[in-house]
Amino acid sequence: MSAIIILNYKTYNESTGENAVKLAKICESVAKSSGVKIAVAPQIADLYRVATAVEIPVFSQNLDVVGPGSFTGHVYSKSLCDANAAGTLLNHSEKRMTLADIEKAVRYARKCSLLSVVCTNSIKTSAAASLFDPDFVAVEPPELIGTGIPVSKANPEIVSDTVEAVKNINKDVKVLCGAGISKGEDLKAALELGAEGVLLASGIIKAKDPKAALEDLVSMI
Amino acid sequence: MSAIIILNYKTYNESTGENAVKLAKICESVAKSSGVKIAVAPQIADLYRVATAVEIPVFSQNLDVVGPGSFTGHVYSKSLCDANAAGTLLNHSEKRMTLADIEKAVRYARKCSLLSVVCTNSIKTSAAASLFDPDFVAVEPPELIGTGIPVSKANPEIVSDTVEAVKNINKDVKVLCGAGISKGEDLKAALELGAEGVLLASGIIKAKDPKAALEDLVSMI
Amino acid sequence: MSAIIILNYKTYNESTGENAVKLAKICESVAKSSGVKIAVAPQIADLYRVATAVEIPVFSQNLDVVGPGSFTGHVYSKSLCDANAAGTLLNHSEKRMTLADIEKAVRYARKCSLLSVVCTNSIKTSAAASLFDPDFVAVEPPELIGTGIPVSKANPEIVSDTVEAVKNINKDVKVLCGAGISKGEDLKAALELGAEGVLLASGIIKAKDPKAALEDLVSMI
Amino acid sequence: MSAIIILNYKTYNESTGENAVKLAKICESVAKSSGVKIAVAPQIADLYRVATAVEIPVFSQNLDVVGPGSFTGHVYSKSLCDANAAGTLLNHSEKRMTLADIEKAVRYARKCSLLSVVCTNSIKTSAAASLFDPDFVAVEPPELIGTGIPVSKANPEIVSDTVEAVKNINKDVKVLCGAGISKGEDLKAALELGAEGVLLASGIIKAKDPKAALEDLVSMI
Repeated sequence: MSAIIILNYKTYNESTGENAVKLAKICESVAKSSGVKIAVAPQIADLYRVATAVEIPVFSQNLDVVGPGSFTGHVYSKSLCDANAAGTLLNHSEKRMTLADIEKAVRYARKCSLLSVVCTNSIKTSAAASLFDPDFVAVEPPELIGTGIPVSKANPEIVSDTVEAVKNINKDVKVLCGAGISKGEDLKAALELGAEGVLLASGIIKAKDPKAALEDLVSMI
Repeated sequence: MSAIIILNYKTYNESTGENAVKLAKICESVAKSSGVKIAVAPQIADLYRVATAVEIPVFSQNLDVVGPGSFTGHVYSKSLCDANAAGTLLNHSEKRMTLADIEKAVRYARKCSLLSVVCTNSIKTSAAASLFDPDFVAVEPPELIGTGIPVSKANPEIVSDTVEAVKNINKDVKVLCGAGISKGEDLKAALELGAEGVLLASGIIKAKDPKAALEDLVSMI
Repeated sequence: MSAIIILNYKTYNESTGENAVKLAKICESVAKSSGVKIAVAPQIADLYRVATAVEIPVFSQNLDVVGPGSFTGHVYSKSLCDANAAGTLLNHSEKRMTLADIEKAVRYARKCSLLSVVCTNSIKTSAAASLFDPDFVAVEPPELIGTGIPVSKANPEIVSDTVEAVKNINKDVKVLCGAGISKGEDLKAALELGAEGVLLASGIIKAKDPKAALEDLVSMI
Repeated sequence: MSAIIILNYKTYNESTGENAVKLAKICESVAKSSGVKIAVAPQIADLYRVATAVEIPVFSQNLDVVGPGSFTGHVYSKSLCDANAAGTLLNHSEKRMTLADIEKAVRYARKCSLLSVVCTNSIKTSAAASLFDPDFVAVEPPELIGTGIPVSKANPEIVSDTVEAVKNINKDVKVLCGAGISKGEDLKAALELGAEGVLLASGIIKAKDPKAALEDLVSMI
């Protein structure tokens, strides 16, 4: 099975500044040795330095629906592209967007060749997001985020039902699942349920040995 | 008269990516030749590359009131410091903050040695902001932003009255003024009204020749 | 043709307080004489007095995704039901909601027997909203809102294509159209394009003679 | 000692709809028998029915900074006045406002003769709010809200220091304190610390016998 793993750096100290680069190099190393696609999503202030230090894809954690102009403090898509981002998360549970903005954000991302990953919290919001033709939908049941309980165990139907609902709407959209995934068996289970990858964070970043954690994660695929 | 000039890059194409660096070098060059302090405030995705390319102070356009942790898509103060920012704008009219968050943001900034510039829109909001002991308050009457009409001409009392109100509350807070400033005479007038500098954007960034515009700006002080 | 007309009161002085009640009585009178279903959506502070004064359906302009508890200043669904509301607008262009909240808001509305009208701005956001099984989707191309240019003339395809997209997803969802509708011929055209009603505001409320304007509106159906 | 008590109804079921009216009548009865000023702040959908049922002052929980016009779903000041509100809470911890909006909201409230109560979370934000000349500032240390631990016991200095800071800025602003107050001795202690009243919620509304709880609250002043 092939799979994509996106590591959301959030705002952990373990993944800020110099640490953002170090962690990206670990991901790059494991990606090379395992052949599994791994992308990282550092904070925006770290995007450029990470993207110039590694060859794996680097994602933004967010994009605001603004064009060029008077939008002080907002995240303009072109600034991400110019920082060598390969894609962006959208609508993460910690940064929800309006329905109207999600449609526009996917379009803005595509305009400057950024892959888009729309985060969702249910089967129906996943189906809704897939109408906008993003590259990925990443479903994360909010009650599991940060618990360490893998969605593939706690609620396997939400994964398989989301895959079905999304593919019924738009077969080109890939489904990732998030929330609680950190072990190889969890990733394997998620892929068997039809997911094409995972979005994860603390399970790797807060691990005592992130490299070992990543190696375990990819060990069964 | 000594003065500080902060150039807010907003999300103009003329100040994004490579252009962000070029413009910072122009500012650095004019700062050196004129002896006037000039700082730039690029987009967050450009912070690191600008801050590693020039020696003038580089400010963020924003900071979110979040700590380390699960705050995907938010601007964590440490990420700005680690990107070599010297300070940050706060509460810009295009990114207003709650009263409670302004107090915290100034404290978060100081904790990692970032200078803070709280943007305000009136005499009383300037006085209010100065209670939180920021390094700067930058007053911008909203009706003048982007008009090209300098606040020092259109409404000189708002500058002098803001200076008085701020100093009454906290004499250590420096007052900048914004909105419409772009020429040397406007800057001179602002300083004569008691401002200690200016926050500006389009007047320089959208000028045909930003270097000439900057040189004109600093020519009378 | 049968049709439903929902009159959004917004925050016009002409539809606040006593005026809210007067206008509802006009709507009630025209509804009775014409046999056309007319509902009104006053401000929340006026809901109760309007709903106790007329027998036509009274809608809220908004509902927040909060339950009972500590949510000062938020719009709790039960407070709307207890004020005798029959339904609620959701996600109006002047009060956009997150994707996740729209799903929940439709559910919260249904739980206390409120009809839900999800406002949308495009064909795809209309399709997305209809996945959540609201009673109505009201499509309003944002560029036409408040212009007086009827969507049924300016962009007839957006109406017919929205109807098609919504019915493909969920045939039980009724499609309203908004933006610029105020005359009988516009309403007729909208219905011929497949809409089952209209959501309108200024065209009636700001008319010199709202009763005459309403009578004209319903004259051709 | 004279004092004002404002009972924030939040969105509790115990204070929604018919219950909002019943609770207001209890407050009115205790106000009459004790001679203590008691005001209630029901949800906006309940304002009109409560304000027409009792003679004690009825406050809104919120006001949005909007005028007449196209502001669907927002709380327009005139709608509150027309519903017979006597005042409004502003900037409650569950509904924070921007600094710029607080200044405007106090002005909008005064324009239609609504008393304003700006909620704050610290000594400095209280001082800041008092610059805008509201009728009241209500300080609620966020760590105590909903805990049942009275601020007058847990952190008496925050009450006395807030009173001092506010009066230094604007002696006409009255200081209320909130968070955890529910017993007569707590209210007495708050008044001895310089507060001129209290803002409270669950301690009364969720009490087994709200009338008895209110009577206890006012028993020592």
